[in-house]
Formats: sequence, C-alpha cells, structure tokens
Amino acid sequence: MKEFDLLKQIYASSKGQGNSITIGPGDDMGEIMVTAGKLLVAVDQLVLGRHVAFETAPELIGRKAIARCFSDIAAMAGTPRGSLITACLPSGIPEIDEDWAIRVFNGAREVAALWGGPIFGGDIATCDDAPPIFSVTAVASPPESGAIRRIGSQEGDYLCVTGELGNSQESHHLTFIPRINEAQELNKDLGDHLHAMIDVSDGLGRDASHLASDDLQLVIDTASIPLRGGASSDQALSEGDDYELLFTTSKLPEHELVSVIGRVVSRTTGSKSVINEHGDDLSTMGWEHA
Amino acid sequence: MKEFDLLKQIYASSKGQGNSITIGPGDDMGEIMVTAGKLLVAVDQLVLGRHVAFETAPELIGRKAIARCFSDIAAMAGTPRGSLITACLPSGIPEIDEDWAIRVFNGAREVAALWGGPIFGGDIATCDDAPPIFSVTAVASPPESGAIRRIGSQEGDYLCVTGELGNSQESHHLTFIPRINEAQELNKDLGDHLHAMIDVSDGLGRDASHLASDDLQLVIDTASIPLRGGASSDQALSEGDDYELLFTTSKLPEHELVSVIGRVVSRTTGSKSVINEHGDDLSTMGWEHA
Repeated sequence: MKEFDLLKQIYASSKGQGNSITIGPGDDMGEIMVTAGKLLVAVDQLVLGRHVAFETAPELIGRKAIARCFSDIAAMAGTPRGSLITACLPSGIPEIDEDWAIRVFNGAREVAALWGGPIFGGDIATCDDAPPIFSVTAVASPPESGAIRRIGSQEGDYLCVTGELGNSQESHHLTFIPRINEAQELNKDLGDHLHAMIDVSDGLGRDASHLASDDLQLVIDTASIPLRGGASSDQALSEGDDYELLFTTSKLPEHELVSVIGRVVSRTTGSKSVINEHGDDLSTMGWEHA
Repeated sequence: MKEFDLLKQIYASSKGQGNSITIGPGDDMGEIMVTAGKLLVAVDQLVLGRHVAFETAPELIGRKAIARCFSDIAAMAGTPRGSLITACLPSGIPEIDEDWAIRVFNGAREVAALWGGPIFGGDIATCDDAPPIFSVTAVASPPESGAIRRIGSQEGDYLCVTGELGNSQESHHLTFIPRINEAQELNKDLGDHLHAMIDVSDGLGRDASHLASDDLQLVIDTASIPLRGGASSDQALSEGDDYELLFTTSKLPEHELVSVIGRVVSRTTGSKSVINEHGDDLSTMGWEHA
C-alpha cells in the first residue's frame, strides 16, 4: 500500500473541478481559497466494525465517512469548502487491499465533490493489528449571520427535528444526505429565531442534552417524534446515526420536513436536562461517545 | 473514556489564549478567524508502535503528533493558525486509560499553543483491537508571496538542508522543534530564489525525489550531508524522522544552519531522480510511506 499511488489517484480527480482548491493532494499541505474571515473546521473518525460493518460496500464506507463529517457542517448551517481524508489500513487482511482502499476513496471523493467540499489532502498509514480507520477533516464557511451553535436555546423555544428518527441501521446511515441545504434554509427563514442546533448522531436523548443548559430543560413529547419505518420512540431516542437536524427556535418553522417534538422550559436544580412528558430522564438515551 | 470529559479538558485551556479561536472544542465544529484568502490544511497520523514506541512518555507522544504535522507547515513556509486532534483508543489495555490520554493531549496542547496553532477541535473514538492512533489536522496561512511547494526546482539550483540528519531515534524525533521560523526566514531572505521545499520525514533519499521531476535530477554529495551525533551518511539518507527542511535555491543561503548537499541538474531519460556523486540511485532510500 503506497501512499503516493493512492494520493495520486485522489489528486488526479481533485484538480480541475472548477473549485477553490489551489494546491491539491501530493504536496506537504493542501491549499484552498476562502472568502470569509471566519472558518469552521471539524474532524470525525469512522472505525470499521464500530461505525460501519466490515462487509459494507467500500464505496458506501467512504461515502459515510464524508457524510458523517459534513453533517457537522449542516449542524452549524455552514457551507462546505473542502475536506481531507486519512486512512489507517491493516496489512494482514487479504480483503483490505489497495483496490478496496481506492474504492473507499472513490466513494468519499464523489460525495465530497458533489456536496461542495472536494478532497484536497490526506494521509495514509499502515496499522498491522487495527481495523481500518478513516478520518475526515471538513473545512466550511459559516453563514454571514454567524454559525448556529449548540448553546443559545431560550426559555419557551420549540424543539424541532428534520426528517425521521430511528431504524437508521437498515439503510439510512449509509445513504443519508447531510442536511446542509435544509440548515441554510432554516437559518434564512428563521433568522434570529433559530437559537441552537446539533445533528442527531448519538441518539436524540443524548444529543438533545447538548442544547440544554444549567438553567434550561428540554421536554420532549415522545408521541410527536417522527419515526422512520417501523421504529419505536425508544429506538428514535437512543439509536442515533440519524444525522437529522435538532434545533430550538422561538418561531414555528413552516417546513414540511420539520416536526415540533418538544419545548424549552426553565430547569429546577437537580432536574435532568432532557425529560419526556412524564418527567422521565431521556438525557442518557443514546451512545456514550467513545 | 468519555469524549466530552476529554474535550472539555482541552477546551478549558484552549479558550482565552488571546488567539484567533472563535469557537473551541465542544461544538459541532471549531471556528477560527483567518486573515488571508488562501489557507493551508494538512492532516498527519501517529500510530503507536510504528511512529512512536508504546512506552514513550505520553506527553512526548502528544508533542510528536503536533510537531510532525506542524513540520508540514514549515515545509510550505506557512504560519500556524490552529489545529485539531483525534484519538482512536483501545479499551482493553490497562495502561491506556483516561489519565494516559489526557497526558497525551496535554503534551499536544502545550506545543500547539506555543507554536501558534492552538487546538480548537477534535474527535475521540474507541478501537478495541487497535493500537492508539492519533491524527492532527493543522490549519496555516501561506506566506504573502505564496506557499513554497515541492515542485518548482530549476536546473543549476543548490540542494540545501537545515540542521543535521540521521540517528533521530535516539531522542531528536521526540524533541525537535518544527522549522517554522527558519522556513519563514529562508523565504524572506531568498525570495524568488527559493524554488521548492519539503521536510525530511521519510528519509533524505526518498524525500529528495519529490523535489525532482521528469526533467530534473538531484545529485547529492553524500560527504556534505551534515550528520547527527554518530550517524553514517547511509543512516542520514534512509532513516527519516529528521523534520529538517530540504530545499532548492538559485542563491546560496547564508544561514549558519544550512548546508549545501547537492545540485539540481538536467535529467536524462531513464535515469534516477536522486543519485550520489558516483551515480548510484538514492531515490528509494527511506520509508515507503505506509
């Protein structure tokens, strides 16, 4: 597995895409043109056997590595500018050969370019005893009005979610499109009413807790959670891998895609950050991030 | 190992450093202020057992993860702006606990801030059967005159290197300071005469080959290679992990730190990209990157 063979593959297709890449893969660093003064950057890892099954089609593995990280761009209402990808590949698994790795990269490269954040750098290492591990770094511009953060919820806000939750493992987690356009539309339509946002990756319960604070509690009406094909509300609350937008707003959004699933209320000392209509703790439903 | 416990540790020390970080770790993405229109980004992996020994002091592991990646900034004559770090940590090794990981992050955070590229984001995952793997994403500004690339060497150029090469494993690879200041001085002093640059990480022979082209060959006078304590020229050519600057220039640099070790000549069809004074191929001396 030679770094440059693979990187050259990526490079050949990265340049000349009419994008803002001024130095592509193959030099010490990649270089892009950025317009605004503020820049968003995130990095996300995809571990085979943990975030995706070994037997998954390699193109879909690469696709998910990009999609997961670009979902963070959506969560800030940002616009993708470019991305970098690393691979740590075992040398002792016959199925994990250069062809396999190139198919992963092809899957990643295709959606990265399609979604406006073409790959312009990366790194490849060999890890004898490890499962394949990929990481994606995403570079994005925040909206002119400023990135939508996790903090900022206000008492009385509606808690809303896009799309449907639960049962993502059947296929959604490999085929979802990061809600970049939807986030920008919501930001445009709701303006200052859009107070805080996150993407649902670890489970609705746990992710919602990041929109709460010491003074603010989220009350979810579990009957209102939009469910993906056959999922229960418990699944929707805990499974994660949905990559839908979860946000708080003081104005009701009029998007077909958006459901109101709860409210932001003031929080009393010792109470949980996220509860259901009966007062049960939902804040620990989901993946402990690790 | 909880992501947020660790990230909060980083965050607590990242904010208020008087730097350009506008959103630190703990949100969906980090955010920094950037001044110029062009931005450099690189990502680099550090695998325990491969790039650094398991028994290395954790602080030095974190230090090396940052230093390796920031050496890429030096190679472009860039200025660090910020960085992100990921960790993929095994759950089954008693010595690799949260304390150990925090010490790695502390080592990384200290030098990242010291060298002007404070950590403003990251990601932590668990990898049951893998050695600990860290990746660092570095964000940097190119010099106003433009980043110094690997391509650009011209016939007749001097081939130069900073510092000394070889025998890095004794201690240098854990204690080196990326040549960021030196690269900027060279760029300022040599101006348009500085044609191409790379940092020596994989071995002088192999890295030099990246400064050659189909039309240009590098001839290294092996007796001129500055050797680190007791190293042979073969070690200097092949061991790598030196993180010195290797560059081509049409003007002789007057830096005390710089040695001229060769010349750029025109290349005949079928000849090797890097040779010694006897015509022996040096281009494959060093680590196959993987």
